[in-house]
Amino acid sequence: MSNRTLHSIDSLQNVFQKYINEHKFTHEPQALYDPVNYILSLGGKRLRPVLLLMSYNLFDDEVERALPAAFAVEIFHNFSLLHDDIMDEAPLRRGKPAVHIKYGTNTGILSGDVMLIYAYEYLLKTDDKTIVPLLFELFNKVAIEVCEGQQYDMNFETQAVVEISAYLKMIELKTAVLLAGGMQMGAHIAGAEEADAKHISEFARNIGIAFQLQDDILDTYGDPEKFGKKVGGDIVQNKKTYLVLKTLELADDTTKEALNNLMSTPTTDETAKINAVKKIFNEVNVRSHAEKIKEDYLKIAFDHLDAINVPNERKQLLRQLSEQLMGRES
Amino acid sequence: MSNRTLHSIDSLQNVFQKYINEHKFTHEPQALYDPVNYILSLGGKRLRPVLLLMSYNLFDDEVERALPAAFAVEIFHNFSLLHDDIMDEAPLRRGKPAVHIKYGTNTGILSGDVMLIYAYEYLLKTDDKTIVPLLFELFNKVAIEVCEGQQYDMNFETQAVVEISAYLKMIELKTAVLLAGGMQMGAHIAGAEEADAKHISEFARNIGIAFQLQDDILDTYGDPEKFGKKVGGDIVQNKKTYLVLKTLELADDTTKEALNNLMSTPTTDETAKINAVKKIFNEVNVRSHAEKIKEDYLKIAFDHLDAINVPNERKQLLRQLSEQLMGRES
Repeated sequence: MSNRTLHSIDSLQNVFQKYINEHKFTHEPQALYDPVNYILSLGGKRLRPVLLLMSYNLFDDEVERALPAAFAVEIFHNFSLLHDDIMDEAPLRRGKPAVHIKYGTNTGILSGDVMLIYAYEYLLKTDDKTIVPLLFELFNKVAIEVCEGQQYDMNFETQAVVEISAYLKMIELKTAVLLAGGMQMGAHIAGAEEADAKHISEFARNIGIAFQLQDDILDTYGDPEKFGKKVGGDIVQNKKTYLVLKTLELADDTTKEALNNLMSTPTTDETAKINAVKKIFNEVNVRSHAEKIKEDYLKIAFDHLDAINVPNERKQLLRQLSEQLMGRES
Repeated sequence: MSNRTLHSIDSLQNVFQKYINEHKFTHEPQALYDPVNYILSLGGKRLRPVLLLMSYNLFDDEVERALPAAFAVEIFHNFSLLHDDIMDEAPLRRGKPAVHIKYGTNTGILSGDVMLIYAYEYLLKTDDKTIVPLLFELFNKVAIEVCEGQQYDMNFETQAVVEISAYLKMIELKTAVLLAGGMQMGAHIAGAEEADAKHISEFARNIGIAFQLQDDILDTYGDPEKFGKKVGGDIVQNKKTYLVLKTLELADDTTKEALNNLMSTPTTDETAKINAVKKIFNEVNVRSHAEKIKEDYLKIAFDHLDAINVPNERKQLLRQLSEQLMGRES
């Protein structure tokens, strides 16, 4: 039954965590499902499912109805992390051994496959069967785009020149579309109007891009105490982030060459490399450009949130979470 | 429009091949979709989609309506081959370089992932949207079971003792359930009664198990001219086939030890090994046991076919194809 109240972020996280705990993968063969339980137990902020539930909650209070879809999105996200970690040969996931390290690559591939299938399985558990085809359509589009984003990301590693527009498209596909599709599904499950579902989707898409740009900025300019990852990690890995690509656009030929050299020469002194790259970033004042474009995306996002036809008070929680994500908590 | 005729096996293969040709994966990024087109172009008998179409054709003539689902099943099958080849480190697929050899393992993983998603995408294209949730339910069950079958198969490699019942369950999951689920979907798309859809599914499940047992038998006793694969390949790879497991059950301790030794000792003379194992098989007359159990499954299969409530003439093509598959073409 609906309790006619808005749920807090914490309460949504708790509701969702309870649902995960009640839906452990306990079937045989254990060798296939142990890694699934393992990666799902590593935690994380559960951002995608919580945003899906918050989207539902914009339009209706009975958020439990959106839990299967929220779990579908979380399973899908973890499937993509699992397979990405194999492709990237990443040893760690959230500070713990990655699945392919702990259980072997073959099990990692197969357990990832079965997770992808279970994402559909949970989507199918949504109580209103009349919208199941629509949910599958939205979910499929997202799932395909996430794979395409990962492929572009891998292409960029060996590509000499990456256009900024192509980079923005890649982060949209790899990160933002899952947030967008998830929130759109949450809205549809709640019975939202088509236009409102579209607005919440665009809100999420633009917030997602802004969030990734923020991540690029924090990699260089973040507070080591607050930033979850190692500051300068992207620089050490020669990742073509927005900061790098925009710097290459802004810099004169000499500076450009210096940056390209730094990124293609093996280095033993990581701190020196981070400092040298950061110096170049600062010379062209790339941070302000990155902040500017991030703000542009944020503005589009909030315009879409404003346009949704529900009382303003129902949107407060989404504003609050967005501010938190952008590191502006008061 | 329906042409009110039964389709021949050849014509169904042609109709299906035409559909594949018209649905090439031409989108960007090419690096993601080239391997998909490649593995789908390697051919094969298109057994699964053709059986799905034949199942549809039992109940209705407008088989084109089942083409998207047939393609979904073929895409899924090729996805599982693609990922299995990575796990098995198989260099070849249908005599050509496997995807992970031609395009690299990372692309192989990701292209397989996107194929799995496209299987759902095509399932979703089925014209009667009211049965889409049912199709997804059937398909999901199958897809999960295929993954479980592959995991059991991998488990068996390192498992000292494999029960015959566990082996039969594994081949059912890895091979038969996809035939069964595909034919069940074909029946539902044609609007078959629930009972008939169940019968065709059980027909396919039991034919599938019989077919795999036949494959085990042919590996040792097949005509090298007719058997598509190298005779004795399972023996060289120490695969725990029905012949091996049943021999271990029938043999005395000395013979059992001899077989276990042959299967655990590295060998340079493959022909000698094949002959030695075959000699042990013959001592316990394992072939007749294998033929017997295969016939048992075939009998169950045909009993289910008989029970389907359509005119007998509509079942002739399925009988004919089954006989072909069992190598009994006249």
